[in-house]
Amino acid sequence: MTNTNKNIQLISTISEDNKLTLALQDIEITQPGADEVVIRIEAAPLNPSDLAVMFSAANMSTARQSGTEQSPVITADVPAQFMPAVKTRVGKATPVGNEGAGTVIAAGSSPAAQALMGKTVAVIGGGTYRQYICANVQSCLALKEGITAKEGASAFVNPLTALAMVETMRAEGHKAIIHTAAASNLGQMLNRICIADGIDLINIVRKTEQETLLRDMGAKYVVNSSSDTFLAQLTAAIIETGATIAFDPIGGGQLTSDILNCMEVAAARDMKEHSVYGSDTFKQVYIYGALDRGPITLNRNFGFAWGVSGFLLFNALGKLGTKTVIAMRKRVTDEITTTFASHYTHEVSLAEVLQLESIAAYSKQATGEKYLITPQR
Amino acid sequence: MTNTNKNIQLISTISEDNKLTLALQDIEITQPGADEVVIRIEAAPLNPSDLAVMFSAANMSTARQSGTEQSPVITADVPAQFMPAVKTRVGKATPVGNEGAGTVIAAGSSPAAQALMGKTVAVIGGGTYRQYICANVQSCLALKEGITAKEGASAFVNPLTALAMVETMRAEGHKAIIHTAAASNLGQMLNRICIADGIDLINIVRKTEQETLLRDMGAKYVVNSSSDTFLAQLTAAIIETGATIAFDPIGGGQLTSDILNCMEVAAARDMKEHSVYGSDTFKQVYIYGALDRGPITLNRNFGFAWGVSGFLLFNALGKLGTKTVIAMRKRVTDEITTTFASHYTHEVSLAEVLQLESIAAYSKQATGEKYLITPQR
Repeated sequence: MTNTNKNIQLISTISEDNKLTLALQDIEITQPGADEVVIRIEAAPLNPSDLAVMFSAANMSTARQSGTEQSPVITADVPAQFMPAVKTRVGKATPVGNEGAGTVIAAGSSPAAQALMGKTVAVIGGGTYRQYICANVQSCLALKEGITAKEGASAFVNPLTALAMVETMRAEGHKAIIHTAAASNLGQMLNRICIADGIDLINIVRKTEQETLLRDMGAKYVVNSSSDTFLAQLTAAIIETGATIAFDPIGGGQLTSDILNCMEVAAARDMKEHSVYGSDTFKQVYIYGALDRGPITLNRNFGFAWGVSGFLLFNALGKLGTKTVIAMRKRVTDEITTTFASHYTHEVSLAEVLQLESIAAYSKQATGEKYLITPQR
Repeated sequence: MTNTNKNIQLISTISEDNKLTLALQDIEITQPGADEVVIRIEAAPLNPSDLAVMFSAANMSTARQSGTEQSPVITADVPAQFMPAVKTRVGKATPVGNEGAGTVIAAGSSPAAQALMGKTVAVIGGGTYRQYICANVQSCLALKEGITAKEGASAFVNPLTALAMVETMRAEGHKAIIHTAAASNLGQMLNRICIADGIDLINIVRKTEQETLLRDMGAKYVVNSSSDTFLAQLTAAIIETGATIAFDPIGGGQLTSDILNCMEVAAARDMKEHSVYGSDTFKQVYIYGALDRGPITLNRNFGFAWGVSGFLLFNALGKLGTKTVIAMRKRVTDEITTTFASHYTHEVSLAEVLQLESIAAYSKQATGEKYLITPQR
């Protein structure tokens, strides 16, 4: 398979004495079963969901670095009050990395596995922050001829999440979407999908440069939550588009509440009769992240026809059904360098991921900055 | 129809100068159409939803009384910032009263209307705080022989809401229910339904006497949110029952959040693998009232498989479908003096509703106190 069988993976471990340790671990390359392939991971993105697994409940401001340059070790404290919430992790080395891409260097005996031999594939799950991963063919997406691992590294999480938002909108009978933190890689993808599919998308951002970025990408509705006239602008955009569903990766704060209130103002303006229960227009906000871990505050002035729910890709895919998911995967393969293109501002090796300096940078999760891990360096 | 055709109704009006006026109004008795009947209203309950229509956005601490003893007038100020929210009501005399019961004294030509002639019926909608109401037969429920108007006065709002909770639990695949403010008339009904149907119900109350009341009525799970060990007790009850759906009439505060967190603790204890996304057990809280009008605060520590939604009887019935609703109405008719019995602590005439002293009393919406209006006095 390889000359050495040498493999390295990034692991995150919480110990009983309230310590988080991040380190590189030497492991064997797993031999593939009939329906499995071994992929040499050449590119894997650092998504917010990966950071959540990697850092868990640790307070990363306490992080210190030890080990060697080739094999650094990061240690950080986990506040005692969070230990009960992570008790099923304690003492277990948890591999990190939800997705990545690379070359299939070994394949099991099944035709599906053999068909991938030598191909560049994207892969989901199992801890992709390693040099070689053994994965079931179902977890792989064969990239088209000429597509690089870097281009295919983010083929699952962001593309499927953006597509799942659009399909959820359709399945639940809404006709336009509101998206917050909308200048993110995911937001840019959603913007491209909505333009291509003729769906009105209201992009909520916090900064003027994000507004400009999205408008330059063809976004028609961009509202800045830092503006004094934000609520009025948002309401006007909702009236124009009829948006009654929103997706929000922030969670904490009042934005969800503000969105529901603006939707209700838009809905209630068509009501001939006053109702103490508010309009009967159903208004939904899905929260798919926790960029702000503070409480979600709902100042309820939006009647009784509303829902606020968590949104998780795998649950959403389960609801949408196999046929829709197969169509989504095909679209991602076809449009990986256009609609679903990701942009990376930094490339780091596995060892460089475990440098205090890089941690300080990528843990900011700043819009416009995105890290790619290249484990073969 | 009657000798005089004299009819009196209670109306609530907001004027452009930010004033709410409650008064009795002389009106004609409407002649019934083919599918309509005229009901002499003999009993109508004061539900929280009626108070919401009656008082609207007014600050009732500013209420003053004028008019005569037979025809009092209440006036109160509406804070200027709430006027936009009620603008569709301004200048319109709004009839109050969602339900009631009485005798059919005139009927339209259709067989369905004629069949109700002389019967005691319950009626929903249209402003029941009046002496005579003209209603479509679809809005009526014929009470069984010997059932009084007082016994049938609350045949719709609380009974159908309690039944809709149970049916929503079934339709959405949950197996036990959590109910807050559980010692209310509605809560007692829900308790009786759940005992009859063998469904585990966790009753959350705030006071020891409410705990005792519900236990005396056969409730197995009663937890007191004022107790120091409330969260532990709630979690233990959830573990025992598997409750993953809650109905809450309070809204404001942290109780919804606490319920979701306890559900998650119960769900996560079965997880073999830690997940940064929390358990995949879906947890739902429906908010069906606004006893606390303050913000709903969600301290999110319950993963991504959750929903918080408004719950409104008519929307819920729409979702559940005609067949279920017909079965519900039959059950209410059959069990109006047992499962669906309501208890009233005070009976007042229409004029007595508009006394400052009674307003101060019934607007407290205190558990265990319930007002019945008897418009024929």
